[in-house]
Parts: sequence; structure tokens; C-alpha cells
Amino acid sequence: MKKVNIAEKLSMISEHWTPRIVGELNGQMVKLVKFKGPFVWHHHDHEDELFYVVKGSFDMELENEKVNVRQGEFIIMPRGMEHRPNAKEECEVMLFEPGTTLNTGNVENERTLKQLQRI
Amino acid sequence: MKKVNIAEKLSMISEHWTPRIVGELNGQMVKLVKFKGPFVWHHHDHEDELFYVVKGSFDMELENEKVNVRQGEFIIMPRGMEHRPNAKEECEVMLFEPGTTLNTGNVENERTLKQLQRI
Repeated sequence: MKKVNIAEKLSMISEHWTPRIVGELNGQMVKLVKFKGPFVWHHHDHEDELFYVVKGSFDMELENEKVNVRQGEFIIMPRGMEHRPNAKEECEVMLFEPGTTLNTGNVENERTLKQLQRI
Repeated sequence: MKKVNIAEKLSMISEHWTPRIVGELNGQMVKLVKFKGPFVWHHHDHEDELFYVVKGSFDMELENEKVNVRQGEFIIMPRGMEHRPNAKEECEVMLFEPGTTLNTGNVENERTLKQLQRI
């Protein structure tokens, strides 16, 4: 049985907005990602997503509000809800979401990643 | 949209081995629990379980080994695998597992909790 050290895995990630898979259970993935700057407005039709901040903070921008999520906090984005993560400074995040979740949700553009690396 | 502050929720928990539900997504629950001392040997027939240490450390005892899981680390216990969490000192843990998961798995005894409180 292997445990996973989050800081060690995060040290292997240099790109922003490039989630890496670090665990899998019950068809759900655990991913680590570094945010910096604004991402893409999108939603997921069939998946809820959890964002847990390991280090730093980011704004979860929604249609009518924004929520500042800080180290030691998480937010769950329900399926169908339009959102855009935006981090003024680099922010380290652990994601929990189904294996089928595409990073840009309903949008496909140059930031879409169809294959995520496992680390 | 509400975010969840882990430390704030943990401050509402005083009992050991009494998970509280703090989030739900895709049929999975996010729970917070405080460990102290040894739990019960058990397994889950149909559910994998993730244990993420928020504070402190605990030993995940398995049939032929034990894994010390510390702050900032997680371990995924696959379904069917016999295990017993054991914490020498109090340890704060975030769990991620299906809504159907019973704390004592295949064992039912005085430590079994069928209804978990949401906080």
C-alpha cells in the first residue's frame, strides 16, 4: 500500500492549469493542479467538482458572485453551473471529480486537455 | 455558493471516530473525523475509501504491514482490504467515500454509526 504525499507530487508540477492524476477511487479521480491567472468560463453537464486549496487562494467566479477560496477550504461546484477559477497568485489545488471530467467542461479550446498524466 | 472551511468544521467535532458529513458530490461524501487510539478491524465490500490527514498522523494497519500517514498525505484503501486505522495521538482526517459507506464496514458493533450528522 502506497500513501501519497501532496507536497511531493505538487513539486513535480510546473505548468499552470494542467491537472495531474494522483489517485483513483470509486470511478472518481484525485487530481493536483496549479492555478495562476484566469481560466476559461465553462460548466460540466454531468459532473460535480470539488476544489480544495492546499496552498494560496483563488476566486471561484460565478455568474453573479465570486467566492474567494483559501488554504484549508474547499468549494463544490455543482454540475451545470457556469464558473471560472481565477488566481491572482499561484494557487495549489486538489480536485475530486469523476474520471470523465474534462478540464474545460463544455468548452473545447487550446486549454482543453484530453489525456491527463498520472504522477 | 458556500465554501467549507475545514478547520472551522473540525472545531465543531469533539468525539473521536464520529465522522460528520461536510460535502456531497457525484454520490460521494466528504467527511471529517477525529481519530484517537485504535479503531475496529474491518473492510468495505463495495467501496474504496480515501483518508487525507489534515493534522497529526495515524497508522493504517493492514494484514501484513502498516503505513504511517501524516499531515498533507493521503492513502486510498481499496474495497475488500482489511484495515484498522490507529492514531497514537489525536489525528484530524478528511474522508472521501461513497454515500453508502458504513464506518465499520462489514462489522457491526457499538462503534457502528448508521446516521451521520451533517455540519
